[in-house]
Amino acid sequence: MADTISKSARKKKNNNVAASLYGLRPAVVVAVVDAVRQGHAERVRHLIRPLHYCDVADLLERLPSDLRNQVVDYCRKTLDPEVLPELDDGVRGEVLEILEPKQVAAAVSGLNTDDAVEVLEVLDSDALEEILNKVEPVDRQFIEEGLSHPPDSAGRLMEREFVAVVQSWTVGEVIDYMRESTNLPDDFYDIFVIDGQSRELVGSIPLNKLLRSRRAVRINVIMKNDITIIPAAMDQEDVANLFRDRDLVSAPVVDDANRLVGMITVDDVVDVIDEEAEEDLMKLSGIRKTDFYQDMIETTRRRFSWLGVNLITAIGASIVIAVFAETIEQVVALAILMPIVASMGGNAGTQTLTVAVRAIAMRDFGPGKASRFILKEVSVGLANGALFAVIIGAISSLWFGDHILGVVIAIAMVLNLVMAGLCAAMVPFLLDRWGIDPAVASTVILTTITDVIGFLTFLGLATVFLL
Amino acid sequence: MADTISKSARKKKNNNVAASLYGLRPAVVVAVVDAVRQGHAERVRHLIRPLHYCDVADLLERLPSDLRNQVVDYCRKTLDPEVLPELDDGVRGEVLEILEPKQVAAAVSGLNTDDAVEVLEVLDSDALEEILNKVEPVDRQFIEEGLSHPPDSAGRLMEREFVAVVQSWTVGEVIDYMRESTNLPDDFYDIFVIDGQSRELVGSIPLNKLLRSRRAVRINVIMKNDITIIPAAMDQEDVANLFRDRDLVSAPVVDDANRLVGMITVDDVVDVIDEEAEEDLMKLSGIRKTDFYQDMIETTRRRFSWLGVNLITAIGASIVIAVFAETIEQVVALAILMPIVASMGGNAGTQTLTVAVRAIAMRDFGPGKASRFILKEVSVGLANGALFAVIIGAISSLWFGDHILGVVIAIAMVLNLVMAGLCAAMVPFLLDRWGIDPAVASTVILTTITDVIGFLTFLGLATVFLL
Repeated sequence: MADTISKSARKKKNNNVAASLYGLRPAVVVAVVDAVRQGHAERVRHLIRPLHYCDVADLLERLPSDLRNQVVDYCRKTLDPEVLPELDDGVRGEVLEILEPKQVAAAVSGLNTDDAVEVLEVLDSDALEEILNKVEPVDRQFIEEGLSHPPDSAGRLMEREFVAVVQSWTVGEVIDYMRESTNLPDDFYDIFVIDGQSRELVGSIPLNKLLRSRRAVRINVIMKNDITIIPAAMDQEDVANLFRDRDLVSAPVVDDANRLVGMITVDDVVDVIDEEAEEDLMKLSGIRKTDFYQDMIETTRRRFSWLGVNLITAIGASIVIAVFAETIEQVVALAILMPIVASMGGNAGTQTLTVAVRAIAMRDFGPGKASRFILKEVSVGLANGALFAVIIGAISSLWFGDHILGVVIAIAMVLNLVMAGLCAAMVPFLLDRWGIDPAVASTVILTTITDVIGFLTFLGLATVFLL
Repeated sequence: MADTISKSARKKKNNNVAASLYGLRPAVVVAVVDAVRQGHAERVRHLIRPLHYCDVADLLERLPSDLRNQVVDYCRKTLDPEVLPELDDGVRGEVLEILEPKQVAAAVSGLNTDDAVEVLEVLDSDALEEILNKVEPVDRQFIEEGLSHPPDSAGRLMEREFVAVVQSWTVGEVIDYMRESTNLPDDFYDIFVIDGQSRELVGSIPLNKLLRSRRAVRINVIMKNDITIIPAAMDQEDVANLFRDRDLVSAPVVDDANRLVGMITVDDVVDVIDEEAEEDLMKLSGIRKTDFYQDMIETTRRRFSWLGVNLITAIGASIVIAVFAETIEQVVALAILMPIVASMGGNAGTQTLTVAVRAIAMRDFGPGKASRFILKEVSVGLANGALFAVIIGAISSLWFGDHILGVVIAIAMVLNLVMAGLCAAMVPFLLDRWGIDPAVASTVILTTITDVIGFLTFLGLATVFLL
């Protein structure tokens, strides 16, 4: 009996742990919304105070604009600066507008440089200038250096705070240096080793190795020479690939002269991986970046251009149909069946396309791999084309009692699925080689091809064999 | 002058650094392929020896099956065990088949438990048993415990090796313990603190904090109590969300009784994030997981079922068209224009769908957010529908010289885009609530709806107003 009670007590405790893990509880959101609606500034602050900064960011993102602005207004003096880098870009812009420049300046001064840069890069140059004028000169210099690197580069991603020691030091000296130093980064996992003369980066040591070594041991004895070095100009997608492939938690960033200028940590890389994965997904549907937090007008505007491109290609396909208007007038079954051929081609092509775009993004293509991939996709198109040709051929001849119609749609199905495989496998490569992002343009090119070929082969063959 | 030379020399050096970063060079792949074709086993081993294990995995993935098997055969005695966890599941299965059970057993014994579990989970139970019989009892127990957790759970992801200390210890005692202990994990970033009596987890300390503290300080003074604890049964997607939201590098895993049983590190979480992002992307195109490394037969088989579902829905749309066969016979322009309405609905819906599926996967929906999202998507559909209605209405009446036709297609366009927004915003939520993965089923349901509604409204309105 006692055992049962203790088990259930443990279980309960454990459930609480699990519940608290999920961060923001719905009840808190509801309570905050109520308090804001009633204008209870003090109560809002009281509700937000115990939250983890990630959960505060989460809360702000979940609130509609007007309530969010009110919350920020109530908490302008108590808002944890760490909340700002966690916010989605769009939401962050709104929040920064509500805070006074002085408050933003104080907030970014309390952040690591990578986070400060991330917060400020959404601002236009006037607003940025106004805030930077209120930041301490040292912090200001770090932030401006960070912003001087191109967007999406390693230089933007890195923090300026890192621990670097000279290779002639001992473990004990390093530990004493770290105990005395006050200007260390909040979190770090490796210390970097530089040459005493040239100041060039020569190695690194994971903290756990440092901890396990005796105080008298020299740093250059235990340091790793074979380290992964990130040039400041490297694209963040390549940085993410290095971290992913080499299981890194932090890596040193060097300038053109191989001087250590910063450190990238894995938490920033996780954000990049999320961002890049999201972009790939969104671009395939013609959305530049997720518009989840955008207002309706902006969302409409952004999606309009993609739908406009789609309208043009759809009209192109209609012109192909119009060529065969007379054939359709005589055999109306063609109008009924033609969307099937086009739709199957589009779907089969999209499958191939998705695999190709992802493989390109993940750098999975080696030499000679592309031609093998294309060959495989054409074979898959032929195989599935043949299978579905038999099925749709049989259905069509039974439905309309016309065997030749069945043969015509069967041939069109095979041709369209083979062409879909070929084009969907080739288009992303060609775009990539021409410097066009395959994720953005591939889908629209592909569906145009499969629609046009689908209608052309089906209606063309029908005109030849049925009339 | 001297300065110029030294700059260019530096630059060159730096470029070499950058080049070596990108891991596997194409020349190496070509050289390996040549050596394998000529049967030069010694040369293959010589080429592979200096490579980083990630690059060896990369090389194996890039080779076609027959060459890959030959390489593994040549290197069976010298292959770095760390290569195995880096391989794609499909490739790993093939490699494990070539190696003898004894060699696999030796390899997994050299890995951390999380990696060993990852390597072995692709095997069927007979092959697994044969290998586990050859593994040391201690390792075997760890691996079997790992495999006893459900797939995709925190228990599968964690490693059994971690550093746990008692809260009454001092910093000095902890450091001495780590210096003497031989069975520590390869990499760790936090040490966990347990209660001396209950053995329950009570806190954690990042290594950098430990390093910065004096030897005499007690652990319970510097430890963090507010730690993120992962229950072993937690789904890996939730684990990834916690790491992402809280910028963690490692976290303790506990069993039902709150006892510390393992540790999850961020490198494993990065793999999970990649995997989940890839799955979301692939599922939207009806591919269960990337088939990039699969052979043609398997790829054909896997994609067939999705195309089969698509065929059924396309036939459903054709049946709707068939209802209006007489109308089409009289006004063939309808057959020409009808794909435009369906295509625009499908594309607009896919945009909404992609945003919704991603937001659900990223747990971006808070209370009340869903209904606001649906309202917004319907508004966007209405706005873009109205804009495109004007455009396509004008084009159609000019093209066919029929104003009523223009009005009919305009109304159909608005209705279809509004319905596309409504359904694409609602379907993923309903599926999620019913426990069906929205990424898999949403697309097919949505395109069926937009096709049927597109044809129904356009041809229906035409029948009423044009005949």
